[in-house]
Amino acid sequence: MKLIRYGEPSREKIGVQIEEKNYDVSAFGGDFNEQFFQENGLARLEEFIKANKETLVEVPEGTRLGSPIARPSKIVCIGLNYRDHAEETNAKIPAEPIIFMKSTTSMVGPNDAIVIPKGSTKTDWEVEFGIVIGKKASYVEETAAMDYVAGYVLHNDVSEREYQLERGGTWDKGKGCDTFAPIGPFLATQDEISDINNVRLWLSVNGKVVQDGNTKNLIFKVPFIVSYISQFMTLLPGDVISTGTPAGVGLGFNPPVYLKPGDIVELGAEGLGTSKQVVKAYEAH
Amino acid sequence: MKLIRYGEPSREKIGVQIEEKNYDVSAFGGDFNEQFFQENGLARLEEFIKANKETLVEVPEGTRLGSPIARPSKIVCIGLNYRDHAEETNAKIPAEPIIFMKSTTSMVGPNDAIVIPKGSTKTDWEVEFGIVIGKKASYVEETAAMDYVAGYVLHNDVSEREYQLERGGTWDKGKGCDTFAPIGPFLATQDEISDINNVRLWLSVNGKVVQDGNTKNLIFKVPFIVSYISQFMTLLPGDVISTGTPAGVGLGFNPPVYLKPGDIVELGAEGLGTSKQVVKAYEAH
Repeated sequence: MKLIRYGEPSREKIGVQIEEKNYDVSAFGGDFNEQFFQENGLARLEEFIKANKETLVEVPEGTRLGSPIARPSKIVCIGLNYRDHAEETNAKIPAEPIIFMKSTTSMVGPNDAIVIPKGSTKTDWEVEFGIVIGKKASYVEETAAMDYVAGYVLHNDVSEREYQLERGGTWDKGKGCDTFAPIGPFLATQDEISDINNVRLWLSVNGKVVQDGNTKNLIFKVPFIVSYISQFMTLLPGDVISTGTPAGVGLGFNPPVYLKPGDIVELGAEGLGTSKQVVKAYEAH
Repeated sequence: MKLIRYGEPSREKIGVQIEEKNYDVSAFGGDFNEQFFQENGLARLEEFIKANKETLVEVPEGTRLGSPIARPSKIVCIGLNYRDHAEETNAKIPAEPIIFMKSTTSMVGPNDAIVIPKGSTKTDWEVEFGIVIGKKASYVEETAAMDYVAGYVLHNDVSEREYQLERGGTWDKGKGCDTFAPIGPFLATQDEISDINNVRLWLSVNGKVVQDGNTKNLIFKVPFIVSYISQFMTLLPGDVISTGTPAGVGLGFNPPVYLKPGDIVELGAEGLGTSKQVVKAYEAH
């Protein structure tokens, strides 16, 4: 299944994508949130779709998409998880996963604008393969880890490099600004991706491809990551894990290149669809 | 006002503390969560208490207390915010606040057990003065920051030093384990604390006082902290900011001293009450 959420920000309705078309499933009830995943929502939704296949109403084309999942309890990210990206940022290959957290207020829809924070000059892009947790996970063994995964999402882990690296403290400071986590277009359940260790992912800025990687180059793989994080904190249903970005971020250019208002960022991952964000300057409300 | 939540974990009811006694206010409806603070819940609750003062039912003594607020969107912490604590951990005095995040799954009631994570040998304590946000805060000026504060809580920012400092990556790895954020006994609204820049806070282990500090020694003060964090991420109503710990943590002893099963941790802050946690070993469920 491919799960979507559509409509106005914070009033999204739930839907599914079938053969490239989006259908409303709000009659199923609830949202794609902790409760949904916890209460076996994926299996129940599949039944619902089977039972109502003939009468599902299509979502009008051009309707805004939200993040395919509601605001989770947390977004946990893995840093420097592709060898080439670690090298381009002059960082050592980590001996074990680097964990940091992204404020969940940074989540937006896949095609919403990226807003450059007030005074920021180093807003950067990072295409990532994201995991959505399906079941409460604490001290999970690597061999059992996939039982705790609901599916996958495309994620742009937008990052402010000055805040992240030059302002003291941990990376969290440069990762959680509003609009810094465009997620979607859809959540693909596990069965939709034939080999998670061979997913091409790419990102372009103003039409020029700058990142072109593949999850086969992940230093730490999906089951290991889920197991690993669950040793340090309990993962809840609906939580997002972002697995790291391949080479080609703005920080890695010589000299570095950062986003400016009007730039167009497009990204995609095989089986996870594509997203497109226009970059905007911050405006006070 | 002093807000409490009481009853079984994740089924807490809301209440208030008046003259050292706890009263049920669940007839007010809802929970002490984002919606409550956003919808002017503090003022409405005050009216409710006035109108129902004579008939409020006391919570039976010995009833478990939960965290006085429901699970927030985030717990943001300030690191090394007391000069003496920075010195004891051999860290430089930060030029600007260090921000890190604590997984919200670490929240427990003020008198719940602290569980030492599986395999951990360096579980440490940190008494802290916590801020609860009352209003959505983004790019807030320091002079206006107090308008965005609902009140204050006592917080033990339990920390695993090996995970935090020796396992690569950011501090988040050692801060978000289950039970690592005992909060409460109550949320004190702003008017309950006469001078937030002069609050004594202390912590003892097995009856021996190890931390005895005062918020007058905070390097970065409450309004500055709220304003500062709001430059990097949007703070939501109900979010918690923990302002840092004074000297006297286990890591600062020579040699370091860490918690072991059976230890009793007691802490308190003037105007914010006291809490007590028994330390337990991890047991698989």
